[in-house]
Amino acid sequence: MHPDSNESPSRDRLAVHTITTKPWALPIAADRYAASGVTGMSIWVEAIEGMSNAEVRDIVNTSGLKVPALVRGGFFCDPDANERISRIENNRKLIETAAEISAEMLVLVVGATPGEPLELQRQWVREGIEALIEDAQSHNVQLAIEPLHPMYASDKSCINRMAEARAICESVRNPWVGIAVDVYHTWWDPDLENEIRLAGELNALFGFHLCDWRVPTRDFLNDRGLMGDGCIDIRGIRRMVEAAGFSGWNEVEIFSDEHWAGDQQVFLDKIIDRYSDC
Amino acid sequence: MHPDSNESPSRDRLAVHTITTKPWALPIAADRYAASGVTGMSIWVEAIEGMSNAEVRDIVNTSGLKVPALVRGGFFCDPDANERISRIENNRKLIETAAEISAEMLVLVVGATPGEPLELQRQWVREGIEALIEDAQSHNVQLAIEPLHPMYASDKSCINRMAEARAICESVRNPWVGIAVDVYHTWWDPDLENEIRLAGELNALFGFHLCDWRVPTRDFLNDRGLMGDGCIDIRGIRRMVEAAGFSGWNEVEIFSDEHWAGDQQVFLDKIIDRYSDC
Repeated sequence: MHPDSNESPSRDRLAVHTITTKPWALPIAADRYAASGVTGMSIWVEAIEGMSNAEVRDIVNTSGLKVPALVRGGFFCDPDANERISRIENNRKLIETAAEISAEMLVLVVGATPGEPLELQRQWVREGIEALIEDAQSHNVQLAIEPLHPMYASDKSCINRMAEARAICESVRNPWVGIAVDVYHTWWDPDLENEIRLAGELNALFGFHLCDWRVPTRDFLNDRGLMGDGCIDIRGIRRMVEAAGFSGWNEVEIFSDEHWAGDQQVFLDKIIDRYSDC
Repeated sequence: MHPDSNESPSRDRLAVHTITTKPWALPIAADRYAASGVTGMSIWVEAIEGMSNAEVRDIVNTSGLKVPALVRGGFFCDPDANERISRIENNRKLIETAAEISAEMLVLVVGATPGEPLELQRQWVREGIEALIEDAQSHNVQLAIEPLHPMYASDKSCINRMAEARAICESVRNPWVGIAVDVYHTWWDPDLENEIRLAGELNALFGFHLCDWRVPTRDFLNDRGLMGDGCIDIRGIRRMVEAAGFSGWNEVEIFSDEHWAGDQQVFLDKIIDRYSDC
């Protein structure tokens, strides 16, 4: 469980999600990340609202940063079939955006509708993803299903474990469909190591997200911890994904009212510092 | 998933946990429950602090209520082996108390220590329970492991699914060790129906706890919903446990700052009303 390795993760695989430094507008985030020695920037749709894809591309190109992911598409679940079709259309546009800003993948938060059976909802998700595969392939954009913690099962995601994400990957069996593993959502799962191994065998490990679980956690959404400030054995999980063949980005994704209220450059410096212990 | 049955649960299996009406002292709770037609009262240790077991027994006897459970023992997890022994001693006392107030079972919230591997902690839990079996048997008190929601994995319970509770039941294989299924903690679990069936085959379904999952949930601890005010298919889960052979109490256990702030008799009346839809 606790590997002895003292090996830090490679700095050229460190990416930060724009949401992590939410107070910074995209050009500032790009500038500061690059100046601080971060290599990748995963871009949230909220961060590019009102901007053309060409503008975003210019900012990215100027910074020299890579873009692991556009975050977040998905939200496939609604009892109304027409609404589900319109959600799929939305995702098509996001795949286009991802391609135009050179994002490697689109992260899918699959959605949930309170009171609908979760199993039925997962079927909607599978149908939605199946409908998007051609677009993903023709645009060279990976679709990464992100299982969310069970505390989000009511209204955010009907996929709450690696196992259910893997079941969809196995069912669609397409190289453009895989999983984003977030330590925050998955650390508690007794099946985690085995599921990561199985996902690796499917070549379905697309993304790896870092933060920590604060004790106590004071808010359902915006109280994630900086790596090292919580109880997650992050290095243990990193070694699981690497043992399963993952060699992609280590993406720092922290939602935190506390950290957003402080100086973002100080926060970014801490992130980079703590990253070496991950 | 959604059974058509319109059959309400039997009123003579309705129990309420004293924590549900926390503002009421034990004698008042007992009096009001009985007067309102509730049949059982599960007693929280906090509700009997400072009272002798004889006093508690008198209150219970006067009310005519049955006591499905003493709530809560457990908390087996600590890296210090001496501390773990002292926790076990605590549980021995609670088993005695349960016997003296005629509680059928002691509910075990198994505990968790932030940062310790969950698998190791589950071993401590198994050892703790094994150490208590003789006491349970000689006092005629069942030990009911309650899996808690994964959002409590850091510091409250290292058992977060039915599967891990069942693994302990299978490992100790003793008629005095079983599971308390709480809809709040388990509703999201894709394996729930199967796990309930397996627990039934082990004769390990000891308790069934009712409340609801509010959308959104505003607090990690004290924002549970009254049945019908959330997204859980409570009747569906009740039918699962009954199909698996469960014929025990339906225990209403709601922690809610909102409901505690209101008139407790009005709240109790609502509980009884909503119970018929469970």
